[in-house]
Amino acid sequence: MKTRMRILITGGAGFLGSHLCDRLVQSGHSVICMDNLLTGRMENIAHLLGHERFAFLKYNVCDYLHVEGPLDALLHFASPASPQDYLEFPIATLKVGALGTHKALGLARAKGARFLLASTSEVYGDPLVNPQAESYWGNVNPISPRGVYDEAKRFAEAMTMAYHRYHGIDTRIVRIFNTFGPRMRANDGRVISNFIVQALEGKPLTVFGGGQQTRSFCYVDDLVQGIVALLLADSDRTMDQRTDRKFLLTQTGASDGPSIHDPVNLGNPRELTVLEIAGLVLDLTGSSSPITHHPLPTDDPKVRRPDIGRARTLLKWEPQVALEDALRRTIEYFRTVLHREG
Amino acid sequence: MKTRMRILITGGAGFLGSHLCDRLVQSGHSVICMDNLLTGRMENIAHLLGHERFAFLKYNVCDYLHVEGPLDALLHFASPASPQDYLEFPIATLKVGALGTHKALGLARAKGARFLLASTSEVYGDPLVNPQAESYWGNVNPISPRGVYDEAKRFAEAMTMAYHRYHGIDTRIVRIFNTFGPRMRANDGRVISNFIVQALEGKPLTVFGGGQQTRSFCYVDDLVQGIVALLLADSDRTMDQRTDRKFLLTQTGASDGPSIHDPVNLGNPRELTVLEIAGLVLDLTGSSSPITHHPLPTDDPKVRRPDIGRARTLLKWEPQVALEDALRRTIEYFRTVLHREG
Repeated sequence: MKTRMRILITGGAGFLGSHLCDRLVQSGHSVICMDNLLTGRMENIAHLLGHERFAFLKYNVCDYLHVEGPLDALLHFASPASPQDYLEFPIATLKVGALGTHKALGLARAKGARFLLASTSEVYGDPLVNPQAESYWGNVNPISPRGVYDEAKRFAEAMTMAYHRYHGIDTRIVRIFNTFGPRMRANDGRVISNFIVQALEGKPLTVFGGGQQTRSFCYVDDLVQGIVALLLADSDRTMDQRTDRKFLLTQTGASDGPSIHDPVNLGNPRELTVLEIAGLVLDLTGSSSPITHHPLPTDDPKVRRPDIGRARTLLKWEPQVALEDALRRTIEYFRTVLHREG
Repeated sequence: MKTRMRILITGGAGFLGSHLCDRLVQSGHSVICMDNLLTGRMENIAHLLGHERFAFLKYNVCDYLHVEGPLDALLHFASPASPQDYLEFPIATLKVGALGTHKALGLARAKGARFLLASTSEVYGDPLVNPQAESYWGNVNPISPRGVYDEAKRFAEAMTMAYHRYHGIDTRIVRIFNTFGPRMRANDGRVISNFIVQALEGKPLTVFGGGQQTRSFCYVDDLVQGIVALLLADSDRTMDQRTDRKFLLTQTGASDGPSIHDPVNLGNPRELTVLEIAGLVLDLTGSSSPITHHPLPTDDPKVRRPDIGRARTLLKWEPQVALEDALRRTIEYFRTVLHREG
């Protein structure tokens, strides 16, 4: 890839998208950030406005998608992404996963741009194996209220692979596990932001179910590092082989091992119970909030932990930031936010 | 429902769609058949052209979708549906499952029409339980070449349920297991049509793998009977309950049992190995063709058998036609086709 690329990021005003904008602008690339601000926020990118290599377009990626000039890469991060958001906006979530991904792939194809899809550990649903490797097919309820996000992302992966195989687009798929850090929304219902805000406000920490369900949390700086590595990695297979129709119709599933075009898990394999996380947040904030238990939502996964062997092999990547340090930085962020908001 | 309805059938010139056109026109309804003829065929509906209660529109359901006048029901059957077809047209398959279903649901909503989605046993993938009940979440590889159909239909189910829950549309979902009968295409790669055509032409019957993988085959008349019963069944839940957002966000998965809006399996629970089917076809055709074995395609399911308890309870439906009778009628059809084509 060129050292100075022109890159479109859909969902660029969201939590992850805005950190990607930062990193790529800092690295000397030009970034076009597209967001309809359904769940993204201008304050995440306010510091970039006016930068000569940054442009913001308020736009719904499901609509007719056009960008002037050349594009070297397109990162498709647009989607409601917290359970609370996709239960509130189920049809928008389905649309951006299907129609939005289709439009974005069409644009990448037209521009000859590399395409990176933000997929999710939710494609594994409520997994029957732990940790989850990329070869695991998942356990998702297609018709549950929660299924809209999972199925939208599974569909987006299927369409991305179809464009790779049949149109020869250079595509990448990252399956993002739980990530946290500054710019999470205080009220979007995620475990860590919930706990931190509750602890800082002296309110009870709400644990769903008994709290023995496990999660693995990656700090946002680590995750962004991995995404950029996946984006920049060289293609490792000739397009000719993958786009040969006869090859596709007759292949028996035999494989030469994972390709850079196959999905790659990114996340932190350190697994904690929800109760352990609550305890850490109470320790690090010095809060004396009590813990209260609430009914578990429909189809809430009981375990979730990435197998990151593929990322280690293909990208030489693994998380660097210790959980406690990462929590401290995030607590500091929310302290500032809450102080500013009074 | 009214005794004389105006019904749109997408994919109406396909194998199942055309039988549905027949049945609904015969029952006194008016039918608009929409098909882009990618895999559908005019000869399937030629006998209906000119009928006062039948109209044909050559149209791609992924495009802007508009139909003049009122609509009482919309049956969304448009999709490539044989493995050979959806491997040949992967992106069209993904598009009609997502964009097509979205447009069709939008039209049903605008017209206040009941919506019936043709889903598939492929949502169960390579199932880890046998038989498959509707409560089974499936085992699908989202990124395999075969996954395009499975994921497209899972997505279509998710979007149908979202429209039901959030827009109050009266929706039905049928999960169709392997079906056969007259109007299957001679060359679309399905087991029974393959075997019959090969047997009648005195060519070797091609069995993929060892032939011990099982399938369950329903005769098309039985299947159409079940689909019409599902379409006509009364709604059994008030919309108010299902569209209450607070209810959706807090429900814990507790249920009063299946609703008519939940997916319903239709198929024949009689399970045979592929080799047994080959033997039956050889017997009934009197052919002396040999059997040859070929490599198993990627992610080919090893078992597939419907649990039809829900259809029995909700629709009082079960298959009536014996497999041998059904095979005889289908052999007769292909004999005529092959004779006509010389």
